Amino acid sequence: MRSRSGLPVVGMIGGGQLARMTHQAAIGLGQSLHVLSEQADDSAALVTPETRLGSHLDLAALRSFAKECDVVTFDHEHVPGDYIRALSAEGVKIFPSAEALLYAQDKRAMRQRLSELGVPVPRWSPIAGPADLAAFGLPAVVKTVRGGYDGRGVFMVTEADMSLPDVELIAEERVNLRRELAVQVARSPFGQVAVYPVVETVQRDGICVEVLAPAPNLPQRLAVQAQQLAIQLAKELDVVGLLAVELFETDDGIVVNELAMRPHNSGHWTIEGARTSQFEQHLRAVLDYPLGDTRLAAPAVAMANVLGGPVGGMGIDERLHHLMAAEPAVKVHFYGKQVRPGRKIGHVTALGDDMADCRARAARAAHWIQFGE
Amino acid sequence: MRSRSGLPVVGMIGGGQLARMTHQAAIGLGQSLHVLSEQADDSAALVTPETRLGSHLDLAALRSFAKECDVVTFDHEHVPGDYIRALSAEGVKIFPSAEALLYAQDKRAMRQRLSELGVPVPRWSPIAGPADLAAFGLPAVVKTVRGGYDGRGVFMVTEADMSLPDVELIAEERVNLRRELAVQVARSPFGQVAVYPVVETVQRDGICVEVLAPAPNLPQRLAVQAQQLAIQLAKELDVVGLLAVELFETDDGIVVNELAMRPHNSGHWTIEGARTSQFEQHLRAVLDYPLGDTRLAAPAVAMANVLGGPVGGMGIDERLHHLMAAEPAVKVHFYGKQVRPGRKIGHVTALGDDMADCRARAARAAHWIQFGE
Repeated sequence: MRSRSGLPVVGMIGGGQLARMTHQAAIGLGQSLHVLSEQADDSAALVTPETRLGSHLDLAALRSFAKECDVVTFDHEHVPGDYIRALSAEGVKIFPSAEALLYAQDKRAMRQRLSELGVPVPRWSPIAGPADLAAFGLPAVVKTVRGGYDGRGVFMVTEADMSLPDVELIAEERVNLRRELAVQVARSPFGQVAVYPVVETVQRDGICVEVLAPAPNLPQRLAVQAQQLAIQLAKELDVVGLLAVELFETDDGIVVNELAMRPHNSGHWTIEGARTSQFEQHLRAVLDYPLGDTRLAAPAVAMANVLGGPVGGMGIDERLHHLMAAEPAVKVHFYGKQVRPGRKIGHVTALGDDMADCRARAARAAHWIQFGE
Repeated sequence: MRSRSGLPVVGMIGGGQLARMTHQAAIGLGQSLHVLSEQADDSAALVTPETRLGSHLDLAALRSFAKECDVVTFDHEHVPGDYIRALSAEGVKIFPSAEALLYAQDKRAMRQRLSELGVPVPRWSPIAGPADLAAFGLPAVVKTVRGGYDGRGVFMVTEADMSLPDVELIAEERVNLRRELAVQVARSPFGQVAVYPVVETVQRDGICVEVLAPAPNLPQRLAVQAQQLAIQLAKELDVVGLLAVELFETDDGIVVNELAMRPHNSGHWTIEGARTSQFEQHLRAVLDYPLGDTRLAAPAVAMANVLGGPVGGMGIDERLHHLMAAEPAVKVHFYGKQVRPGRKIGHVTALGDDMADCRARAARAAHWIQFGE
């Protein structure tokens, strides 16, 4: 144990809002999260004293960071697999492993593996050029194999001569979806799993704007199927830590869209809305602690992301005043970021007995902070 | 505003567990709590990067600390009133004021003022020596006017020749109490008040060991009276921030025991058990933000303090494993302190529908960490 209190030290590579909120959870567990951050004013670097400045693409920085930690994990999926393998070979406990994380880093590997496992996915194919795309059939969703998130790296292609980025790509059928769902599961090295209720994620322009927990009117059969799928994937891919499975609900059932192996925007509702937050759960999982209770803390929970609004006019502090006066029970989470239009600067959560009411309150609160009205 | 995010900066004098947990709440509000801490390994200093080392008894240190903050408040009651007045005269926003805080610092002033306000208190008198004490009548509870907490500075006197410390003292009648209660209220400079449900506090050897929220089987009439009393005191004493009112429930009604003007052990249950935690509420109050919803998040909430157990044998990390396996829904809060027998090193909270069950789970969890069984 590297801490005076006799409790282990967790290090997180990356200093974004996920590390920031993980630090909040770590405090309760008697820790102070160690963070490898690129900038001194990254979200997490602002709130934890145990920040080391360095790049996740610098193996020496990773190695030096890991020396101070009992276990190392990630705020994002951008650490090269070779570096993770190198650290692991040197005896660093680092989760998830490079072999597992590959399926959150590489969409082609993920699609390939899920297809082999018989997990429902959209019809898909690797594509090397326009001929492949034409053979696949249009319209198609074209995705960069690596590096996409929040709608980036995803293109709707309707004409075969549309220009595409010169990187590895896959094509997927355009799924006729009813809505998007997500389910999170935690898995420890011991092999314990704990799955959260299935949620509905509402996207706008490729960005998640709302999460509703539990997913309203989801047939029990589909909910159980989604949870079992998440557990199966966590086991088969040997995930340690959190796995978020993003799903499409279609007329024919559910299909897997994306995977993430870390705390995820679709789980921010758990901070107040579940007995164990996803951030505490991720720490418990990578520490090989027994996992926490994933039950809902209220019948209905709605989370809305807060985007930066127009600059000028009412300041963010005054907007927060108005929001708090209007919605004294909505919980606000700011990420310490400077406001830029459209930038994700925080989220809000409303709990209650009625989903329509919670959703309206969360949306109104997010709107207040963005637009000051 | 002193922060880049456009949100104000709160400074807290004192680096104990209250500042530690206030930092957790501050993160959500877009802040990083600034802490004036005596030691680099104080509970809060371990978890916030904005720690300044210095003594609360050093006016120059207080002045320099306050310069970086939009508003300053306290983790404890030990800052001299003259220093608070000096800072305030220099334009520092510091809450509660010296005039209010006096009533949490000086038991004679508190008893005098409450008596004038007609608030029910035990029969009491200042005492200057054995003759006064004999005149007051024995047995009596003798208290040091300043500096007592957690049972320190309180003496049960049964014989007039019992030796007493050579400091200012008051005597109080020994109240024939049914149990102890507490109620917390927040008040902002604007004058808004928000009161929490009345709780039962269970003491052992003068130290609070359990808090039950809401206080079981408390007649509605007494609950309302206690809440109204807390609101009255917050207004009359011009408190800004949190006020905790500790009460005795007797056959004849409630009487006030002690006051505290900060987040308080009797309010730790609010982190998960109320819609707004006492730590967020204290920040909102001193920032003059609209106050948060104080409603219970579950029908029954039980908090148990965790004391350090015998040194040697099973380590704290292994004890935590056992606890988490046995009680996956109990929330653990460690304060980052080294374990010493009898030292308050954390607390645990259990939520549910049934108080007896919550209480048993919290007590079992605290016992696990203390004794490893």
